[in-house]
Amino acid sequence: MIGASTTGSQTAAMRWDGERLRILDQTRLPDEETWLVLTDAADTADAIARLAVRGAPNLGVAAAYGLAMAVSVDPQPAAIQAAAALLVATRPTAVNLARAVERVHGAAMSASGELGLRAAPAAARAEAEAIHAEEYLASAKIAEFGADLLAGRRRILTHCNAGLLAAPGVGTALGVISELAARNPHVEVFVCETRPLLQGARLTTWELGRAGIAHALLVDGAAAGLIRRGEVDAVVVGCDRVAANGDVANKVGSYAHALAAAAAGIPFVVAGPTSTVDLGTADGDAIVIEERDPAEVLASPKAAALPDTGGVRNPAFDVTPAGLVTAIVTEAGIARAPYGETLAAQLR
Amino acid sequence: MIGASTTGSQTAAMRWDGERLRILDQTRLPDEETWLVLTDAADTADAIARLAVRGAPNLGVAAAYGLAMAVSVDPQPAAIQAAAALLVATRPTAVNLARAVERVHGAAMSASGELGLRAAPAAARAEAEAIHAEEYLASAKIAEFGADLLAGRRRILTHCNAGLLAAPGVGTALGVISELAARNPHVEVFVCETRPLLQGARLTTWELGRAGIAHALLVDGAAAGLIRRGEVDAVVVGCDRVAANGDVANKVGSYAHALAAAAAGIPFVVAGPTSTVDLGTADGDAIVIEERDPAEVLASPKAAALPDTGGVRNPAFDVTPAGLVTAIVTEAGIARAPYGETLAAQLR
Repeated sequence: MIGASTTGSQTAAMRWDGERLRILDQTRLPDEETWLVLTDAADTADAIARLAVRGAPNLGVAAAYGLAMAVSVDPQPAAIQAAAALLVATRPTAVNLARAVERVHGAAMSASGELGLRAAPAAARAEAEAIHAEEYLASAKIAEFGADLLAGRRRILTHCNAGLLAAPGVGTALGVISELAARNPHVEVFVCETRPLLQGARLTTWELGRAGIAHALLVDGAAAGLIRRGEVDAVVVGCDRVAANGDVANKVGSYAHALAAAAAGIPFVVAGPTSTVDLGTADGDAIVIEERDPAEVLASPKAAALPDTGGVRNPAFDVTPAGLVTAIVTEAGIARAPYGETLAAQLR
Repeated sequence: MIGASTTGSQTAAMRWDGERLRILDQTRLPDEETWLVLTDAADTADAIARLAVRGAPNLGVAAAYGLAMAVSVDPQPAAIQAAAALLVATRPTAVNLARAVERVHGAAMSASGELGLRAAPAAARAEAEAIHAEEYLASAKIAEFGADLLAGRRRILTHCNAGLLAAPGVGTALGVISELAARNPHVEVFVCETRPLLQGARLTTWELGRAGIAHALLVDGAAAGLIRRGEVDAVVVGCDRVAANGDVANKVGSYAHALAAAAAGIPFVVAGPTSTVDLGTADGDAIVIEERDPAEVLASPKAAALPDTGGVRNPAFDVTPAGLVTAIVTEAGIARAPYGETLAAQLR
C-alpha cells in the first residue's frame, strides 16, 4: 500500500488507502482545500477531464488507480476494457496516462489468465501502486539531477504547475526548484500565471508560499520581456510528452519562453519522468494537441463572461522544438542533444 | 472643431465638441458603452491613468484636449505648467502623450507672449484639434500602406488593441487589418486576449465583431504555438514608442510573438504614426517600461481575487528588438531595416 509511509502524503495531492483514491481538488485551490473520494473509473475519468487532478505523472497514477478500482468492481475482461477506454479518452496529450492504463490493464489480464478472474483486482492494485512508487522515486531523482544542472542559477522562471500537485513526491520542475532553494536560500521564482486555467497563479504560488520560497507572479506575456532584460537565470518547466527527437509538448505558453531563453542565452530545462518520454512519437508534429472548451478562455476577471463574438482557439499545449531545449532531466539523468540518442539510451 | 464631420465620430472613441471631450469608457467594454465627459486636466489625467482612454495616439489626443481645457479654465503660466505636469506623469511609455502636451503647452505660451493671456485658450484648443486631425489622417494612411505591404496574407495575428479605440480614425494595426479585410473577405484575425487587462478579448473582438471581420480569441501563450504550426500568415501590432534604432515598445507580450514570427519566417509588422517614433531614444533599453498595479494580475476569473503570496511583477510593455521587426508602417510610408536611417528619413 502506498500511503503516508512511503509517499510523504502530508503534502501529496493524492492519497491511496488500498481501496479508494482521495485527491485534492485542484479546481478549488487556492480558495479551498477540498478532498474528493474516487471509487471507480467513471469518477476518476471525470476528475481527470475537469482537471481536478492534473500533471502528466499524476494523470498516470490517478488513471492507474481508477482502472484498479474498476477491476475490483468488475474483473470481467469486457468491463476492464471499457473502463480502460473511458480513462484513456479523457486527455490525449500526456503519454503517461495511456501507458499507466495499459500497464494496469495488462497486469489484470495476466493475473486473470494465470490464476482466474478473482486474482485480477489484487494484481491491478499492485501494478497501480508500483506506478505510484516509481513516480515518487522519479521525482526525487529529477530534483537532484536538475539542481545539480542548475547550480549557481538563482532567478528561475517556470510555467504552469509541475510540483507536488502534478507529480507524486516533490514534483518535477518545482521539485528541481525546491531542491535549488534548499541549497541556496536566495533562489527566487518567477511564476507565469498560465492562462486560461491559471495553474501557475493558483497552484504554483500556493506550493511556493507553503514552502517559503520567494516568488513573483506575472502574466504569461511578461516572461519574454523579463528574460530579455536579464532578470532571469534559467527557465524550468515540466512536460506532458517528449517525442523521440526531444521535441517537448508542455502547457501552452512554454514554447514562447523557450524562444526567449534561447535569444537571451539562458538554459531552458525540461524536467519529467521517463514515463513522459514516448519513443513511439517521432517528433512534436506527431503529438496530438488537445483543444479544450472555449469557456475556459471566455471566463474573465473583467466581465461575467466575455461574449464569444467570433470563435475561440484553446489549445492546451504547445510544442517546443528540441533545438531550443538545453537539457531534459529525467530520473535516469540529464539528457542533452542529440536527444534521439540520449533519450533512447535512458529508456534502454 | 474636430467633430462628426471630419473624424467619423460615429465610430470614434473620443468626441470633441469644441469645449469638452467625451470618451467611450474602455474599462466598461464590452459590457457597457458608457461615455464619460471630461472638462479639465484632472479628470483627463484620471481617465488616462485608469485606461478609460488608451492607445498611444489616443493618449496624445486626449492629453492635448485635457491641457487645452485646463488653459481655458486658467491661462496663467503656472497653472498651465501644473496641468501639463499632471498629464505627463500619468503614463511614461507612450511618447505621444508627452509630445502632445508639449505642443499644446508651447502653443498656449506663444499666444500668451504675443497676444496676451486671453489668446492662450483658443491657441491651445487649435493645437489640440490639429493633433487630432493629424492622427486621424495618419491612421488612414497607415491602413493603406500596411494593407499594401501585407497583400496576400490572410490569417493575421494581433495583440492588445490598436484599433479605433486606440487611435483616431480606423486605428493603426487594426486599421491595417480592416483595410486588408476590405480588400479580401477571407481575412481572419487571431486575437490575443492580452492579459492582464484583456484589451484583446474585450476591445479588439468588440471592434472586429462590429466590423463583421472573422476572428478567433486565444490566450497570449497560445500565439507562438499557432504560429509554429503554420496557422498564421503575419503578425501586426501597434506600438507605444519606437526608438531611433527601430526597437519597439508595445503592450507586454508582443516580444514573444515577434520571436515566434521570426522562427516561423512570417512578417512581424509594427503599425503606428510617426508621433510614436522617438529619435531622442537611442534604443529599447532607454525606454521606461511602466510597472502597473499588482491588483491587475491578481484579478482572476477563477477566484474572487488571488492571494498575493509572494509579490507580483506587472510590466505594461515589453521591447521587441529591431532585428525581429519586418517593417514599421507609419503615415510616412513603410520603414525597413536599417531603421536608424529609414525612420530618421521619415521624420525629416
